[in-house]
Amino acid sequence: MTFISKLTSIQQQANSLLCVGLDTDAQKIPVQLRTRPHGFLEFNKRIIDATADLACAYKINFAFYESLGKKGWQIMEQTLAFIPSSIITIADAKRGDIGNTSTQYAKAILQDMGFDSITVAPYMGKDSVQPFLEHKEKGVFLLALTSNQGAFDFQYKKIGKNRLFEEVVTQSQHWTNQHNLGFVVGATKSNEIRTVRLLAPDIPFLVPGIGAQGGSVEDVIRYGCMNNGLGVLINASRSILYASQGKDYSAAARSEALKLNNEINFFRNKYF
Amino acid sequence: MTFISKLTSIQQQANSLLCVGLDTDAQKIPVQLRTRPHGFLEFNKRIIDATADLACAYKINFAFYESLGKKGWQIMEQTLAFIPSSIITIADAKRGDIGNTSTQYAKAILQDMGFDSITVAPYMGKDSVQPFLEHKEKGVFLLALTSNQGAFDFQYKKIGKNRLFEEVVTQSQHWTNQHNLGFVVGATKSNEIRTVRLLAPDIPFLVPGIGAQGGSVEDVIRYGCMNNGLGVLINASRSILYASQGKDYSAAARSEALKLNNEINFFRNKYF
Repeated sequence: MTFISKLTSIQQQANSLLCVGLDTDAQKIPVQLRTRPHGFLEFNKRIIDATADLACAYKINFAFYESLGKKGWQIMEQTLAFIPSSIITIADAKRGDIGNTSTQYAKAILQDMGFDSITVAPYMGKDSVQPFLEHKEKGVFLLALTSNQGAFDFQYKKIGKNRLFEEVVTQSQHWTNQHNLGFVVGATKSNEIRTVRLLAPDIPFLVPGIGAQGGSVEDVIRYGCMNNGLGVLINASRSILYASQGKDYSAAARSEALKLNNEINFFRNKYF
Repeated sequence: MTFISKLTSIQQQANSLLCVGLDTDAQKIPVQLRTRPHGFLEFNKRIIDATADLACAYKINFAFYESLGKKGWQIMEQTLAFIPSSIITIADAKRGDIGNTSTQYAKAILQDMGFDSITVAPYMGKDSVQPFLEHKEKGVFLLALTSNQGAFDFQYKKIGKNRLFEEVVTQSQHWTNQHNLGFVVGATKSNEIRTVRLLAPDIPFLVPGIGAQGGSVEDVIRYGCMNNGLGVLINASRSILYASQGKDYSAAARSEALKLNNEINFFRNKYF
């Protein structure tokens, strides 16, 4: 099954475009969990339990796990194993290197760890991305337009008639792939979500920047969805994970996820 | 002490611009080591022992360690601990993400693991790089022009009068830093090494692409060095690590490192 078919089927079945970002910060989880030996993993498990019926994907941000060294790597593996197989997993790792090195990253993350998809940086070009795309059933979300201020430094710069992010979107669609290419497009740049959707009508978008970063859900749905009202994964991390600092953190996370999912589906109904 | 002072002093003392890349591949180390429980680490230790008096830096390529999961993370920490403190360590991780995520990567790699420097990808702009630069005594090698074919896909594209890699080199020098910014410039692009050196006279270059990838040592020295004949780190990985598949692998690695170091110093004497 191609990655895009798998994603479409999960989004339809779950009636959800919500991706929950597990950017779990050992310093921000509730105090009573910080001192327990498995507090970090317990936090992830309870967040997953509380949101699994509302999400089409979980995104694991590698930085937050690597910051715990080898213990973090183990927690990442255990968290991954705990996510129901019916839900897409995204390794938010933003890798990209010369061919033989990208091959190692792809093997490690997509094959050995078994993530369904990964985020990849485009600066090093085609041969740095190809080893990820070669894993035919796995998704590759290439950074196109990111949600941060720094996106203006290079991504918006004009290359001939195109801006750099448009060049990335246009060129990468010609690279050999099995309907497993996707793009990261930040929610904070609504005009450009529309631009990228016009350039890439059938490619899924992973959309960070809702919540703590302030992007508009309405614009993302209206301009980002494919014609079928699917094909975007709207990520929220901090707003869900840290909805409460108290013992009710998992209930509060569920409530936030539900609120966001309802908002997303409200606009899906409005526009599709 | 600033990173550039530390690097200069090490390069002078060791009379070496050689960086040995520990891209250790569990499938390529000598057969007799592959079956031993600590074979991978033993290989690294013997390579380090055999080359430490010839190198100014060791570069650890994260992909090759991550591909072993949490065990790989431990081997990376143990390898790092084994490198003499008089030698620069480079985390070849090519990280770069939104601010709060880059902050986590910087803490994990530069502070907790204690690497002296790291490679960082520029696509996400200033605020994705700044958290690394804030570690004042640590070096940040920003990808400018990479050694692979894919460099032509985006890095060479014209933005106004500049090419993208020139824009990265020019703009990033205005970002707040404490003489701890460096650039990755591939040895396979000798004309452009000269261009980047003219744009950045005082910034150290990490230069991959010698050896297996075919760059010219003479050009790198002639065009890449600072006026003092220092300031480039010439990396070789596969040509040193896998110089022999037999029991003599560490002696063969030393012999390759010595040959390359002699070649480097021959051209340093010729041009500086």
